[in-house]
Amino acid sequence: MRRIRLQLAYDGTDFHGWQKQHPPDAMPLRTVQEVLEAALRRVLRADVSTQGASRTDAGVHARGQVVAFDYDGDLELEPMLCALNARLPDDVQVVEADLADEAFNPIADCTSKGYRYTLAHGCRDPRNRPLFDRRCVAVTPYTLDPTLMQEAAGQFVGEHDFAAFARINHGRETTVRRIDDCAVSEPSPGRITIDVSGSGFLWNMVRIIAGTLLEAGRGRIQPTDIPSIIASSDRANAGQTMPPEGLCLMWVRYD
Amino acid sequence: MRRIRLQLAYDGTDFHGWQKQHPPDAMPLRTVQEVLEAALRRVLRADVSTQGASRTDAGVHARGQVVAFDYDGDLELEPMLCALNARLPDDVQVVEADLADEAFNPIADCTSKGYRYTLAHGCRDPRNRPLFDRRCVAVTPYTLDPTLMQEAAGQFVGEHDFAAFARINHGRETTVRRIDDCAVSEPSPGRITIDVSGSGFLWNMVRIIAGTLLEAGRGRIQPTDIPSIIASSDRANAGQTMPPEGLCLMWVRYD
Repeated sequence: MRRIRLQLAYDGTDFHGWQKQHPPDAMPLRTVQEVLEAALRRVLRADVSTQGASRTDAGVHARGQVVAFDYDGDLELEPMLCALNARLPDDVQVVEADLADEAFNPIADCTSKGYRYTLAHGCRDPRNRPLFDRRCVAVTPYTLDPTLMQEAAGQFVGEHDFAAFARINHGRETTVRRIDDCAVSEPSPGRITIDVSGSGFLWNMVRIIAGTLLEAGRGRIQPTDIPSIIASSDRANAGQTMPPEGLCLMWVRYD
Repeated sequence: MRRIRLQLAYDGTDFHGWQKQHPPDAMPLRTVQEVLEAALRRVLRADVSTQGASRTDAGVHARGQVVAFDYDGDLELEPMLCALNARLPDDVQVVEADLADEAFNPIADCTSKGYRYTLAHGCRDPRNRPLFDRRCVAVTPYTLDPTLMQEAAGQFVGEHDFAAFARINHGRETTVRRIDDCAVSEPSPGRITIDVSGSGFLWNMVRIIAGTLLEAGRGRIQPTDIPSIIASSDRANAGQTMPPEGLCLMWVRYD
């Protein structure tokens, strides 16, 4: 028996998120896990049960999702990767396949994760509306100031109680998390990216951080307001939950 | 009566090309002209008949298609642009609107056009298969040498009879065209772009040039073979017609 680790990239637009969902009396929803396990069944000729590092929501993308499963046959890794990609639809692909420790747990063993949130801003002017990248950015009518956003982003770094940045009913025992880095850049005119990495994230946390940085970029809050928003532990003080299409899981790290 | 000129961008993936097509006893096909004229009817409250500079094929994209029409109402240009974009689907947008000379003809008056062809190469390795940009690139399993391709590309510049680079039954009186520039670059790992501009292009000409440069990039023909392929006027000597998804009309120029 081998424990296999896959690195997965997907365009989340047409998926109901990562996790399998079999509603009673209805067809299973199209999720990344569903589609991946179907491809694994055909390629490995066995039922396998996969575990993903991040339970990405509907519409969220990934470049470096990590998935693990046990496999008891003798297909080598490289032919497995090729055969899987030949079976997978064109919005999901296996980027890497390797052998993991037999006890490897992609959720519990994860030491940090990196996400990117991409905004198309200034879209009140219809000339700035995204076209070719419209599936992978969130649109805002406001013109944002990336310098103000970067100043605000720096305030998130460190270990904090992020209760104000979690969806109500997040279902976690503790809301303390460590943010290692939060950086704002402008890769091209009209686009702003927020790269945030840390020990772990609460449900919707990156999307709420993005919504709060958007307020900073509009000048509606000051960068120096961030510490008190965090300290309040009150969801109502943070910005809106931004839509899923701007979010991408970039990488998952293990020691 | 005013003559209006629009600049249009579209993701051609889900269009049957630019031109209106009304098959007998069937629904009109979804074309850019069809969708644009429907939006114009609603915004201008009048039937308008548009003329496009380039009759792009099914699946071909545009960043700078130019379209002209006569309009006899008094809606100003900026509100017209905004209202059109609000009506248009998310895969087509009006980038600019201005007033043209009343005799302006977007086809006859055009002095040059620029196209870009984008290749994802080395895709025999499934890791290199395009994901987020898959709608806008053509995929080739071969790993191409952009230096060889650039050398070959330079051979196209000048006024030549491009009969070897036209679809059979191209329906034009003369196959002499002037290429002003043909440049190959590598904007990111695994992607090669071919930018070609000139006085005018025969049907499928850019896609056949791309297919011929692909042969040069594989080393199957030499850059110095291009002049004799052109001189032969024989379609069989040029490369394959590359698929439409890699092609984008970048701009149309007028004096």
